[in-house]
Amino acid sequence: MSDRILASYLIETPYPLERAVEVMAGEQSCGTFTRLASETDALREAHGARVERIEPLESLDSPSLPIPAPPTGVGPPVYRRARVTLSWPLANLGPSLPTLVATVAGNLFELKEFSALKLLDLTLPPPFAEAYPGPQFGVAGTRELTGIPERPLIGTIIKPSVGLSPEATAGVVRELVAGGIDFIKDDELQANGPHNSLEARVDAVMPVIREHAERTGRQVMYAFNITGEADEMREHHDYVAAAGGSCVMVALNAVGLAGVTQLRRHCRVALHGHRAGWGLFSRSPHLGMSFVAYQKLWRLAGVDHIHVNGLRNKFSEEDASVIASARACLTPMFDPPTPGCEVMPVFSSGQTAEQATDTYAAIASTDLIFCAGGGIMAHPDGIGAGVKSLRQAWEAAVAGIDVDDYAREHRELARALETFRR
Amino acid sequence: MSDRILASYLIETPYPLERAVEVMAGEQSCGTFTRLASETDALREAHGARVERIEPLESLDSPSLPIPAPPTGVGPPVYRRARVTLSWPLANLGPSLPTLVATVAGNLFELKEFSALKLLDLTLPPPFAEAYPGPQFGVAGTRELTGIPERPLIGTIIKPSVGLSPEATAGVVRELVAGGIDFIKDDELQANGPHNSLEARVDAVMPVIREHAERTGRQVMYAFNITGEADEMREHHDYVAAAGGSCVMVALNAVGLAGVTQLRRHCRVALHGHRAGWGLFSRSPHLGMSFVAYQKLWRLAGVDHIHVNGLRNKFSEEDASVIASARACLTPMFDPPTPGCEVMPVFSSGQTAEQATDTYAAIASTDLIFCAGGGIMAHPDGIGAGVKSLRQAWEAAVAGIDVDDYAREHRELARALETFRR
Repeated sequence: MSDRILASYLIETPYPLERAVEVMAGEQSCGTFTRLASETDALREAHGARVERIEPLESLDSPSLPIPAPPTGVGPPVYRRARVTLSWPLANLGPSLPTLVATVAGNLFELKEFSALKLLDLTLPPPFAEAYPGPQFGVAGTRELTGIPERPLIGTIIKPSVGLSPEATAGVVRELVAGGIDFIKDDELQANGPHNSLEARVDAVMPVIREHAERTGRQVMYAFNITGEADEMREHHDYVAAAGGSCVMVALNAVGLAGVTQLRRHCRVALHGHRAGWGLFSRSPHLGMSFVAYQKLWRLAGVDHIHVNGLRNKFSEEDASVIASARACLTPMFDPPTPGCEVMPVFSSGQTAEQATDTYAAIASTDLIFCAGGGIMAHPDGIGAGVKSLRQAWEAAVAGIDVDDYAREHRELARALETFRR
Repeated sequence: MSDRILASYLIETPYPLERAVEVMAGEQSCGTFTRLASETDALREAHGARVERIEPLESLDSPSLPIPAPPTGVGPPVYRRARVTLSWPLANLGPSLPTLVATVAGNLFELKEFSALKLLDLTLPPPFAEAYPGPQFGVAGTRELTGIPERPLIGTIIKPSVGLSPEATAGVVRELVAGGIDFIKDDELQANGPHNSLEARVDAVMPVIREHAERTGRQVMYAFNITGEADEMREHHDYVAAAGGSCVMVALNAVGLAGVTQLRRHCRVALHGHRAGWGLFSRSPHLGMSFVAYQKLWRLAGVDHIHVNGLRNKFSEEDASVIASARACLTPMFDPPTPGCEVMPVFSSGQTAEQATDTYAAIASTDLIFCAGGGIMAHPDGIGAGVKSLRQAWEAAVAGIDVDDYAREHRELARALETFRR
């Protein structure tokens, strides 16, 4: 297999496509705005980014992102879209994720030649799989840690997101574990604030988790949010692991690739990746990065779970995008595929019993964590009924039974559908 | 002074402004999509984000970013813009930069209520200044390390960006130091690739720098790009420092806040911050973050220099934005201001002798690094003449002499203007 790195992009430009893409390739490899004598043909051949493919798409009358007016030609400018693929020799950067990001998602976003530029996908040569650990637990390991061999993990987020004391958090956890929950996570806003420090929270929550595990033989996975400085995350990871915890969570964009990779190399529990800030990469159709490319970076860095939003969510993302994201998490990387590099997609955001059927229909897998906050906590009959309603909804989905039929014999599901169906 | 964190945003929404902003405040503090019994008034009072100000701006007929259609009302929807300020109690998160980012630049970008959302500015309470080291050298320290008390540092980027061997790099450095350069940096694409490893480059370059320093008493600052994994950056920093180097560079977005902060706490040389990937935050007028907010995060994390692009650059950024960015770097933070937290703005991208006058007129300061790649390397009379042309252009600017008048008596400047003026 080739030792080249491939990246595909959606672009839009008022310049001839070939010329614009050459600027992109030059900017991201050995070019500068004027060709230097030292940029020999041999150097360009060995280190230049190569344009592999240009597939022209539609044209527009106006630019999608503001750019300086192009030089006047004959008539008004036309903004041509295309899907293009560039490649780089691994020799330029070696298998380094941070330098990969600076190369495939660096200065090029600012080039004046482009009125749209979005990274769509990445294909990485095998040395990246050798250089990075990838997920430590992934799908199979998460199932083993939680003792749930087949069905989706039913999860929730501690709510209110911030403001509860450690003791109040433990009180909510007590109700959740009694109600049969599989997975609980801190909110991404709740890390190590003075009103609820990580250590105090671990001290309050873990006895509840451990006691339940001793009684039932099944340990609920609690993702403690250890987002913070590098040394702080390491200490907090150790604190969670020493208390018998099985998972830590980090806000990926806020911590960054170097911090997450370092944590992963130290980590002995599952690593739950929160994508807070993802909207910055995704909200514009004309700028940023697809989740398909994004999740490859974090899988290599070593997360075991990553958030993908959910169907009919409270955010702006369309369902088709959520489905594509979840499928990407469960698709092998590399050629030949590296076994075990799949990660658990985490469904979250406005999820209730109401979305299980469609979610299963869309991804045809139960290898996922299905998180509901209000969908559990605001169930009219309480937290236990909220958890049951989600299990029942997934039982119906997997068995291919209409959810309303199933609700006739499952009161918690019926009450959830009544309450949450919009 | 208040212990609250303030963040201001540009927003656009088809919903009533007050309601939309309440959703934003709820999402980023204690709310979920349905109010829970445990979200008591006391908890909201103590931990909820507060809407401090809403300044309505213009209205539009269509959304700037795609959002799901709002519920139909009377007539077609109107998209209202506003500048809003929210505040959070420090008690929610403590002085933690990663949790700050998850709070002020997290999930809110994805909310379906908003067809534009951009973080404009941040005001942080003093505990952040106590928790983070800030720049170690900043403006004064960089001047001391380079022995240049007053004028701008004239800098360059090794070009071609990638592909040169360590020996060829040292050859370029030899010409540059002989030509009188003050500052040299690796390109952001050139970190630790197999064709030019960091250690081999240090071994080749540093003897040239040291020999020149011994001869002249003035050490050229070379920013070695150590972007990489956390442990790798630490080792490479140590390697640079042991060889007598005075600066390391990191691609900030690719490494992330936790990695950069950890490096800063270990660092004994100047820390040069490259913003590759900044376009992702800035290219859309309707999404992302202003540089004013962005540079505050990295200054606290501890960079000494940060890139701000340049006037009439090869990218899409307008000059007014470049000027605002440079001024932000030189503006104190915190109330009362923390002395020494100003950082050197680094001008770069298509810079030549041609932009000095306007740059000085715009920022009225010489506390900056003025980097030219092609503007030095492609000078028709060679690298030494390229460096001289930039010094001469800045002499003219600071003395208030018309650059063309000055060029009459300064041949290198005249030739640069001839070559590069567009």
